[in-house]
Amino acid sequence: MIEEVELDQIQSLIVERNWSELRKILAPYPPDAVSEMLTDFSKTDRVLMFRCLGREQAADAFSFLDDELQEQLLGELTDQETRDVLANMSPDDRTALLEELPAPVTQKLLNFLSPDDRKEALTLLGYPEDSVGRLMSPDFAAVRADMTLPDAMAAIKRQAADSETLNMIYITDASGKLIDDIPLRRFIVARDDQTVEDIMDGHFVSLIATAPQEEAVNTMKHHDYSALPVTDSNGILLGVVTSDDVLEVAIEEDTEDFHKGGGIKPLDMHYLRAPLKLLYSRRISWLVILVFMNIFSGAGIAHYEELIEAVVALVFFLPLLIDSGGNAGSQAATLVIRSMALGEVRLLDYVKVAWREMKVAILLGLSMALAVFLVAWWRSGMEVAQVVALSMTIIVLVGSMVGMSLPFILRKIGLDPAAASAPLVTSIADIAGVLIYLGIASAMLEIAA
Amino acid sequence: MIEEVELDQIQSLIVERNWSELRKILAPYPPDAVSEMLTDFSKTDRVLMFRCLGREQAADAFSFLDDELQEQLLGELTDQETRDVLANMSPDDRTALLEELPAPVTQKLLNFLSPDDRKEALTLLGYPEDSVGRLMSPDFAAVRADMTLPDAMAAIKRQAADSETLNMIYITDASGKLIDDIPLRRFIVARDDQTVEDIMDGHFVSLIATAPQEEAVNTMKHHDYSALPVTDSNGILLGVVTSDDVLEVAIEEDTEDFHKGGGIKPLDMHYLRAPLKLLYSRRISWLVILVFMNIFSGAGIAHYEELIEAVVALVFFLPLLIDSGGNAGSQAATLVIRSMALGEVRLLDYVKVAWREMKVAILLGLSMALAVFLVAWWRSGMEVAQVVALSMTIIVLVGSMVGMSLPFILRKIGLDPAAASAPLVTSIADIAGVLIYLGIASAMLEIAA
Repeated sequence: MIEEVELDQIQSLIVERNWSELRKILAPYPPDAVSEMLTDFSKTDRVLMFRCLGREQAADAFSFLDDELQEQLLGELTDQETRDVLANMSPDDRTALLEELPAPVTQKLLNFLSPDDRKEALTLLGYPEDSVGRLMSPDFAAVRADMTLPDAMAAIKRQAADSETLNMIYITDASGKLIDDIPLRRFIVARDDQTVEDIMDGHFVSLIATAPQEEAVNTMKHHDYSALPVTDSNGILLGVVTSDDVLEVAIEEDTEDFHKGGGIKPLDMHYLRAPLKLLYSRRISWLVILVFMNIFSGAGIAHYEELIEAVVALVFFLPLLIDSGGNAGSQAATLVIRSMALGEVRLLDYVKVAWREMKVAILLGLSMALAVFLVAWWRSGMEVAQVVALSMTIIVLVGSMVGMSLPFILRKIGLDPAAASAPLVTSIADIAGVLIYLGIASAMLEIAA
Repeated sequence: MIEEVELDQIQSLIVERNWSELRKILAPYPPDAVSEMLTDFSKTDRVLMFRCLGREQAADAFSFLDDELQEQLLGELTDQETRDVLANMSPDDRTALLEELPAPVTQKLLNFLSPDDRKEALTLLGYPEDSVGRLMSPDFAAVRADMTLPDAMAAIKRQAADSETLNMIYITDASGKLIDDIPLRRFIVARDDQTVEDIMDGHFVSLIATAPQEEAVNTMKHHDYSALPVTDSNGILLGVVTSDDVLEVAIEEDTEDFHKGGGIKPLDMHYLRAPLKLLYSRRISWLVILVFMNIFSGAGIAHYEELIEAVVALVFFLPLLIDSGGNAGSQAATLVIRSMALGEVRLLDYVKVAWREMKVAILLGLSMALAVFLVAWWRSGMEVAQVVALSMTIIVLVGSMVGMSLPFILRKIGLDPAAASAPLVTSIADIAGVLIYLGIASAMLEIAA
């Protein structure tokens, strides 16, 4: 979108301190383009450029900046400048900013708001983190059911400039309770002698402000709307959630699940901007926990020390067998975690899922046992091959059952099923694998000996 | 939304064959609610209920059904019923249906369409799979820049009933080229003596129809719009993509990446409805490939057979060390894959990312080496402890570098970086781990002996 030429021109205007020209050049840019430019500039140039923006433009562009850049820029602005930016931001963007900042900064900024805006911000911040309330904008277009069409259109026109979306017009009763939502197009094609009630259908889908944001994602995905109304528990209309906000939530949630699946505490920021300390701290805890869990595998092996000394060939197949259990387990955990996140599988489905996974795991185990039997037979003879093939079947079955059960157990005790990461499942499957393999070997080879 | 009572009532009306009453009861339900009921009913009841719906209602409810149920239901309907459903579906839903069905069925359905609809469907289907063109709806509201405001409003009103979104009105020149997009609210608050040109700002973000859908996700996330215009490569306006469609794409793509990350070929359907055969075939290939890769670990161990026979204690630490390399590698791969999917990291960033990951990996490796040194010292004496600690540091470093590099390599050769799954990274890290550990042990313990 932004040409190199333009960036160069802006850069040189900053160097020349030609603020009036810069102001003129920047004026027509939409906020997202301005925010891109701000991101590209250095810290000092960024502030200088920011000061040349119109008030509303500045506030809108500010909303598009990354959390870190927002905080940094706020540190450079005067109190009056900060006040202007905040006053011109939309309420949902303002809430997002206030909840990201450190508590003392939030407190300071709240004091900069007008009494009305402060009350609104505090209301929005009062909803639990990750609740729909934090996501909603209180700017919507609503009309009363008993209005005539011309009155309703006039009311919509008055609210148009401030509304997040105009696709849907919300209908409330005298107490502010939501009773319907109607597409704007139906107002446009209606006749002037009709009332709002005449074009209502009485069906709508709404969210409760205290519901988890996950519900907004699943409802929006399921119902194909571009905005959903939000009410309190009594059905009073409080705001709207738009699908672009929900898109961001969905992507963020998926990033968290993805990170957890790799055994990382969610990073919650741009990878290339994350400080080294953070990259370290988000990973070290799981790695060390897993090291200590793996000591059990070592203890298992130590228990069979004599067996290993007698048949060293058994060690050749150790990584292969324990890895296979871990791999099958990771696959099962991955499927279950994602199905839970998509709302396809619930706690109640445990037996159903366990039964499916058991059947699949037996098929997988037998296929892999066959593959490994041929290799082991050629490499270490029939006896070891039998031990390895039997172990493979059982290890894959046990690994799969561990992998599929872990997300259920985590959810049952109130934790995030996504914490059943591939590394965690692998480590548990490894301990089981060592015991199963060496146990079977010890039983079968002693009989043979 | 749907009460048990209502479901029971509908059920009994079906049993009673009381179609007129059923038709009356179903009429006010919105399509998503109807589709939920259809899903809940048995195959025979589903067709009977479907036949009692109004034409438009039937088509809309049909769009909300799962792919499998759509196909099943089509098999039960007469040709005329199928024709009605298709004629009343929106073009993007119709394209989605046509591309899901087996080719002969698609061909048959295309013949049911009116000549105009058929032409449209063929145009939409002509775009590459996973391209923006497949996602767009050709129903939008557009006006010409030289129109007066009253003319423009009249034109918008004419297009209102058919448009996917009315939040944005698109402005084209005489050749149909997109030159701007303007929020409807700006039309509503404009004066009658203005022309469209007067309220234009000349800035817009658009997508090319042949671009990958991923681009729609990233653009929409970045720019916070609820709809984006789609053009051909000459800038001619072809359609719009709405954020609710993009939300679905984002969730689907994340599911695919998530599945790949667990070493599974993407399942692309509801977990509980997936047939056993599919659950098996999506997993077995990676498992078997990994088994054969792991044979290299075995070969590595076999190479050091004598060393192991001499110092069996080395085997105790084998699972722990090779797992740690795999875990660190999975973490690095997870971070890089997700950052690539979010557009934060590109191929060009390889050196930057490698440098960061190297620093983090050294810190992680040293921390883990310390932990494992103490355990090994207590368990197997100073000599083995030194070997284990040194091996841990190097294995974690190598594992991390393998994990971070693999997604870059896969993307470079045109594959999906998400294929760098935890199981794959673990298996590669295992082979490296075995060689590093036993190599170091062989060097250090021979000197000591």
